[in-house]
Amino acid sequence: MGIQLARRMDILKASDVRELLKVTQRPEVISFAGGLPAPEFFPGERLAAIAREILSEDGARALQYSTTEGHAPLRRQIAARLNALSDTRFTADQILVTAGSQQGLDLMGKLFLDEGDEVLCESPTYLSVIGSWNVFRPRWVEVPTDDDGMDIAALEQRLDGCRRPKLVYVVPNFQNPSGRTWSLDRRRRFMEVIDRRGIPVIEDNPYGELRFEGEALPALKAFDRRGLVVSLGTFSKIFCPGLRLAWLAAEPPLYEKTVILKQGTDLHTSTLSQMMVSLYMERHDLDEDVRRITTVYRERRDAMLAALEAEMPGEVRVTRPAGGLFLWAELPEGVDARELLGRCVARDVAFVPGEAFFPNGGHRNTMRLNFSNMPPERIAAGIRRIAGALAELREQAPCGAAAGFVRDESAAQGAGKP
Amino acid sequence: MGIQLARRMDILKASDVRELLKVTQRPEVISFAGGLPAPEFFPGERLAAIAREILSEDGARALQYSTTEGHAPLRRQIAARLNALSDTRFTADQILVTAGSQQGLDLMGKLFLDEGDEVLCESPTYLSVIGSWNVFRPRWVEVPTDDDGMDIAALEQRLDGCRRPKLVYVVPNFQNPSGRTWSLDRRRRFMEVIDRRGIPVIEDNPYGELRFEGEALPALKAFDRRGLVVSLGTFSKIFCPGLRLAWLAAEPPLYEKTVILKQGTDLHTSTLSQMMVSLYMERHDLDEDVRRITTVYRERRDAMLAALEAEMPGEVRVTRPAGGLFLWAELPEGVDARELLGRCVARDVAFVPGEAFFPNGGHRNTMRLNFSNMPPERIAAGIRRIAGALAELREQAPCGAAAGFVRDESAAQGAGKP
Repeated sequence: MGIQLARRMDILKASDVRELLKVTQRPEVISFAGGLPAPEFFPGERLAAIAREILSEDGARALQYSTTEGHAPLRRQIAARLNALSDTRFTADQILVTAGSQQGLDLMGKLFLDEGDEVLCESPTYLSVIGSWNVFRPRWVEVPTDDDGMDIAALEQRLDGCRRPKLVYVVPNFQNPSGRTWSLDRRRRFMEVIDRRGIPVIEDNPYGELRFEGEALPALKAFDRRGLVVSLGTFSKIFCPGLRLAWLAAEPPLYEKTVILKQGTDLHTSTLSQMMVSLYMERHDLDEDVRRITTVYRERRDAMLAALEAEMPGEVRVTRPAGGLFLWAELPEGVDARELLGRCVARDVAFVPGEAFFPNGGHRNTMRLNFSNMPPERIAAGIRRIAGALAELREQAPCGAAAGFVRDESAAQGAGKP
Repeated sequence: MGIQLARRMDILKASDVRELLKVTQRPEVISFAGGLPAPEFFPGERLAAIAREILSEDGARALQYSTTEGHAPLRRQIAARLNALSDTRFTADQILVTAGSQQGLDLMGKLFLDEGDEVLCESPTYLSVIGSWNVFRPRWVEVPTDDDGMDIAALEQRLDGCRRPKLVYVVPNFQNPSGRTWSLDRRRRFMEVIDRRGIPVIEDNPYGELRFEGEALPALKAFDRRGLVVSLGTFSKIFCPGLRLAWLAAEPPLYEKTVILKQGTDLHTSTLSQMMVSLYMERHDLDEDVRRITTVYRERRDAMLAALEAEMPGEVRVTRPAGGLFLWAELPEGVDARELLGRCVARDVAFVPGEAFFPNGGHRNTMRLNFSNMPPERIAAGIRRIAGALAELREQAPCGAAAGFVRDESAAQGAGKP
């Protein structure tokens, strides 16, 4: 029809995986594909009372425009909680309330990225940061990671090869998709590099509170001497995602500029949602809620690890997350997880093929499994079905040469698959 | 501190006017500066009951992630209402629920604008579209308007001079800031030009329902044969702005691409807010609410027009809006509305200097007055104070040569003042 769009729209397409995953909305499907928190823990009744109280007694404020920065009491509560949990020293006036962390990512893309700028990230990295920032047409530079976090030597080497490295994006706790957590030593060494090179870091920490074992580690921000780290956090994984409430914490001058961008993006986040969460935190013990969720997610992780151990062939390697919502599996070389997903969907079970988490593509034999949203029995049943589909796939193509096996890895390369 | 930001950040600055207007939050200030709806009409009690019901009975859904497009019943309600009021034929699957119309603007900027593209707009135009789209570094081309709307000959001439005209942005009903409404004839002729040239139009209609007199006119979209018009509408002015709920209506392929952009921007709009407004519209008569608001705003407009007539010198020209929230005043040549604002703030009264509504600057002798948020007595008192400040300013600088009078119009020019 000849309407001319912005050039950035070239690479934004609806993904075929997303189409496949639409079936996961059918109740009979056991879905390990989403990142949905378990809804049985949403405090619906408590929030019903709180919403009623706010709207009856303070409706004119709850329903009116408010400031871009956010509801002042909530900003104080977020700062206090963040500092206690992450060993940081943010003040309330460095907290910007956002409409989910996804908005925090959008704002950071706007703040930092020109076309062709390099963004460094873990390999694999969070799927939705790729979609969010591809709008700004950066070049993605993936840095290898292992079970202790980003490979620091590789980071330095990649930085040396960059023309305009503008940002580093990392998820140091229970990463999505890998489930991995950075060691203390790796955090320190990473921040030494950052400090020396003066490159801004987006530290995204949606899962840090969902720790099943071991001790909490300080945030990267705790080692930041130059105001280079911007911290993103959210209520979506520790409370309720549907309220779309998250925060961004940054020091001047980044903070003020981000506020101006947020004003142009959506003026401010829902006043009612902000007042509800603030009053909830005043009245109830959010930490207690988090402990309850964590206990259940731990059982579910254990159920998934046990099922993988029992059902999957020995060549399948999986991570063992100490928290969060996801684990990561590497299938035998040559197995294409998309083809496996096709067969799994026919068996009413789903996951996300791993390639989507690599901004430059490839790694087609990997997959992400979410364990937070299904009870243990269904987890066991689902893994059994995936193992069955995998066995079938390998049987039909035993030499890795037939359909379902990756014939040409390079065909999967190419910038910017969201 | 040496952190390198995106180039787009060069032109985004906190405005000095915004700083001046911070005083308007003091309760003793009579502010004509905001665009705030009157909070006494927010249905706090009704929404309290509705929120309680939704959260008690359907909390797992209201608090969980939901689809990017929006809550299905709400999309159906919006389509039906929009078509009835604007003479359009949108289907529910062409409605995208957004976090305020501001987000609709952001998404349209992302969809269409590359650096250097031309955006055509009314002169003056909506302040916040300038801030929103300057992020994408377009060139603003202002088209003169009169009391019947955009000057069509001037539009054609401006289009002929453009290299890459990508978008036309217009507010045909009770425009912000001018209060003007396009005539039927002007709408038709505008759409003939658009149809012939194939240029997308963003038709922003936040105020259309707030009509005080005369008959509603069909939307530009009603004359759109090629799917070129994207319609923006909002609950902020007819219901409650604090819920941040608005919509964007577009035909394929623009719709699908906008959904992908929204997904990268904030995933989806608050599920609870959407369910609340949907249930409210099911249970209550929103049209009745709108009639009530409109009656009051009409009285306030009349009060403001009467006060302006009584208090202001004859050279001050004002528009006479048939609806909406704003009117527009042109002060005598040479008077600088910023300087006047400084004096007004000292007298506890405020407005927005008009220059901010011209993307290329200038027109420093203009001002926007909001009449929706103050009762008639305070409106009268406020206008009296402004008239007093104006008299004082003119007395002290009688020849237009001293402080407060525009000495060098060209100094105010320059692209992209938000």
